[in-house]
Amino acid sequence: MNSIGVFGLGVMGANLAMNMANKNGKVAIYNYTSDLTDSFQAKHQNKNIEAHYQLDSFINSLEKPRKIFLMVTAGQVVDSVIASLLPLLDQGDIIMDGGNSNFLDSNRRYGYLKKKGLHFISVGVSGGEKGALNGPALMPSGDKEAYQQVAPILEKIAAQVDGKPCCSYLGKEGSGHYVKMVHNGIEYADMQLITEAYQFLRERLKLDVNQIAAIFEEWNNGELESYLMEITSAILTHVDEETNLPMVDVILDKSAQKGTGKWTSQNALDIGVSLSIITESVFMRFLSTVKEERMIAEQELNGPNPFMGAVNKKEWIELVRQALFMGKICTYAQGFYQYKQASEQYKWELQLDEIALIFGGGCIIRAGILNEISNAFKENKELSNLFLSPYFKDKLNNYQEAIRKVVIKGMETGLALPCFNASLIYYDGYRSAKSGANMIQAQRDYFGAHTYQRVDKEGDFHTIW
Amino acid sequence: MNSIGVFGLGVMGANLAMNMANKNGKVAIYNYTSDLTDSFQAKHQNKNIEAHYQLDSFINSLEKPRKIFLMVTAGQVVDSVIASLLPLLDQGDIIMDGGNSNFLDSNRRYGYLKKKGLHFISVGVSGGEKGALNGPALMPSGDKEAYQQVAPILEKIAAQVDGKPCCSYLGKEGSGHYVKMVHNGIEYADMQLITEAYQFLRERLKLDVNQIAAIFEEWNNGELESYLMEITSAILTHVDEETNLPMVDVILDKSAQKGTGKWTSQNALDIGVSLSIITESVFMRFLSTVKEERMIAEQELNGPNPFMGAVNKKEWIELVRQALFMGKICTYAQGFYQYKQASEQYKWELQLDEIALIFGGGCIIRAGILNEISNAFKENKELSNLFLSPYFKDKLNNYQEAIRKVVIKGMETGLALPCFNASLIYYDGYRSAKSGANMIQAQRDYFGAHTYQRVDKEGDFHTIW
Repeated sequence: MNSIGVFGLGVMGANLAMNMANKNGKVAIYNYTSDLTDSFQAKHQNKNIEAHYQLDSFINSLEKPRKIFLMVTAGQVVDSVIASLLPLLDQGDIIMDGGNSNFLDSNRRYGYLKKKGLHFISVGVSGGEKGALNGPALMPSGDKEAYQQVAPILEKIAAQVDGKPCCSYLGKEGSGHYVKMVHNGIEYADMQLITEAYQFLRERLKLDVNQIAAIFEEWNNGELESYLMEITSAILTHVDEETNLPMVDVILDKSAQKGTGKWTSQNALDIGVSLSIITESVFMRFLSTVKEERMIAEQELNGPNPFMGAVNKKEWIELVRQALFMGKICTYAQGFYQYKQASEQYKWELQLDEIALIFGGGCIIRAGILNEISNAFKENKELSNLFLSPYFKDKLNNYQEAIRKVVIKGMETGLALPCFNASLIYYDGYRSAKSGANMIQAQRDYFGAHTYQRVDKEGDFHTIW
Repeated sequence: MNSIGVFGLGVMGANLAMNMANKNGKVAIYNYTSDLTDSFQAKHQNKNIEAHYQLDSFINSLEKPRKIFLMVTAGQVVDSVIASLLPLLDQGDIIMDGGNSNFLDSNRRYGYLKKKGLHFISVGVSGGEKGALNGPALMPSGDKEAYQQVAPILEKIAAQVDGKPCCSYLGKEGSGHYVKMVHNGIEYADMQLITEAYQFLRERLKLDVNQIAAIFEEWNNGELESYLMEITSAILTHVDEETNLPMVDVILDKSAQKGTGKWTSQNALDIGVSLSIITESVFMRFLSTVKEERMIAEQELNGPNPFMGAVNKKEWIELVRQALFMGKICTYAQGFYQYKQASEQYKWELQLDEIALIFGGGCIIRAGILNEISNAFKENKELSNLFLSPYFKDKLNNYQEAIRKVVIKGMETGLALPCFNASLIYYDGYRSAKSGANMIQAQRDYFGAHTYQRVDKEGDFHTIW
């Protein structure tokens, strides 16, 4: 009998199956079409893997309670796969969904399967192809008792950091997919922040790709240590064989996206949290797609002189480093504030310190900063915003001047740095006891009789203006 | 027989009924509970209005095809009202929904009623209480033939500008509610932009409320002419009777919102357009609600010296004026870009020049600028972005330096001006032929084999990094 079955043999599913076979034991595999099963078998000869071409033989080859790991395209496919499995399963069997499913779908599937006596575990999976094979970050949610039954497998295949697996039970219902969703949003912002640092160094400080690669490598040895920093260094030194140009100069600047970033922003709007940095990173991807318009606009619309003149480059490089770290702090502050609000509003009991630990290994956004985030939430379970934890408060107070200088220099020279910028605006907005919202409330009351509160007493008031 | 029936007698419904009775003729009114009907009758004695306390007598009092105008709470209430009407209606009768319904619901209701042989017209209504009574802006959509039957009534009760009603057929399905939704998003941003101008004048130029009221009044005589500018002047001179302080200083700076702004941003994320300014205005409302946290943060987090020092105030006032106008242009550019994309993606055939004309009177965002917007889209039906129309291009080129100075001064003195800021970032991003998206694509290809395009040839490429 096989201890687990993997349904779906795309790159991610195939690599997860190999990972399970290497670290755990007997794995059954199945794919809707036989071609992927054939090519998997041709490529890998792993004696722990048993390929099935019939759904019933696949299911019947599994130990009870059966554990089935779905790695299929998110969306309706998941529902039709579940429908095809249902007649073959018994009470207590466990379906795991490892795709990038929308958490609202996962909540629904969790409830639907619970009624049928089955367990549904949402598993956010991060780490790309290589992570899936060698050790991804896993973000499981659902019923804790059901998780206990799959924990030995999932925790074995997950990335390990300091002997701890990057996998632990996160919360109720589909919250695992929620955690993955926001993870992806943070990933969008992180990529955009690094890109803005790169743009400033290249286009304003006029450094070349190799110089920037070396700088990023150096940064990667300090508090900015992260997988994305590391691969950006590698990208910068990669030369296109056809043109002999830096690879990055040969790639068209229209960026695509698959939707999880946008979901993160849409959810932030639903639950009422400011997520300006991630949202700007999504909007910048949209704006990048209208390249033809941008080319016309560059001719038609004026900007300032783009040259910085003679400056102390070493000094500015350090300012950009601090700005980048501060942008990261602001991104995580918003993202974890979103987790906190979601956990309260949806009653999920998310463990923020655990989430940060899981992100610490295997996944795309793994970074040194996550240890500090985990510590901040471990030390103070009530912490509402990372900004107010001792470690990050110090960093912000030390680095706010740097990000201010970099953002202002970008504006003075016409270089849009949307995520650096949104970070600083959020920082300045958050640390303003007095906002402009009293004026907004006055306007709303004026034209719509929406009422307002007063500073000096309780209640709702309306003025005959 | 009555020519139209109004269902729902909240403030908006009651005022619309009065408006119809004053300008059109016989109106039947009905409310689910009799209290509002009684108080309406007690307050207004209008011989053109016939109150009904039974749904069937209300319906039977209407000329055929019956025209029923719903003004009830958006959401499920609309569905249950429709369900209660269905058994009483005949083929060809027309239901209008004047609430702030989500356009996705309106699309659904349109299709549902069409199958039953009934017409459904979404009517975006703007103008608040007074507008409803004296002449609102109306944004109707659905089947054009059905609209023709209600046009005489709607166009009579709408605001009139230069002898033209602020009401015309806008497009298919629920697009009228879509147009209203984005209108509200623009309203959010417009309010926030005016607030930021106010904050800069008050907190940085140290002008008092009366000085600012006078400045806004003057601005309101020029290209910044708008209803929101006008009421903000009035708000600033209003004194609280209890404390003798400026009213605006007595109002608590926590702003509420009812959801249409957030829907606008969520839809922009769905259809892939950058809507950074409206979204920032929504996020700022969220941030305003955590006043207690902001008060702590002000003590804990450092910022720069908030004083501007000796400056030429007159010069700065003009810079702020230009910045505000430029912020408005950027907001409308994004909003109308969203209309254009929505119209194409949903196949609605929206008339952008008509929309701008409708906004020109009656509604909350009515403003001089709307004439220019209408002209821009009338002159060039293919215009993708307002930025590229001759009038606005000139303004942008003349004012970009001013908004840059104001935003930079805000940052230098630690004053968050999120919508001014997002405007400039959008402007600089839009006019950059070269974005940073090539780096994003390289990163995506590195960790996820997502492929990229090249600058020098067609196709999708993947690098073994």
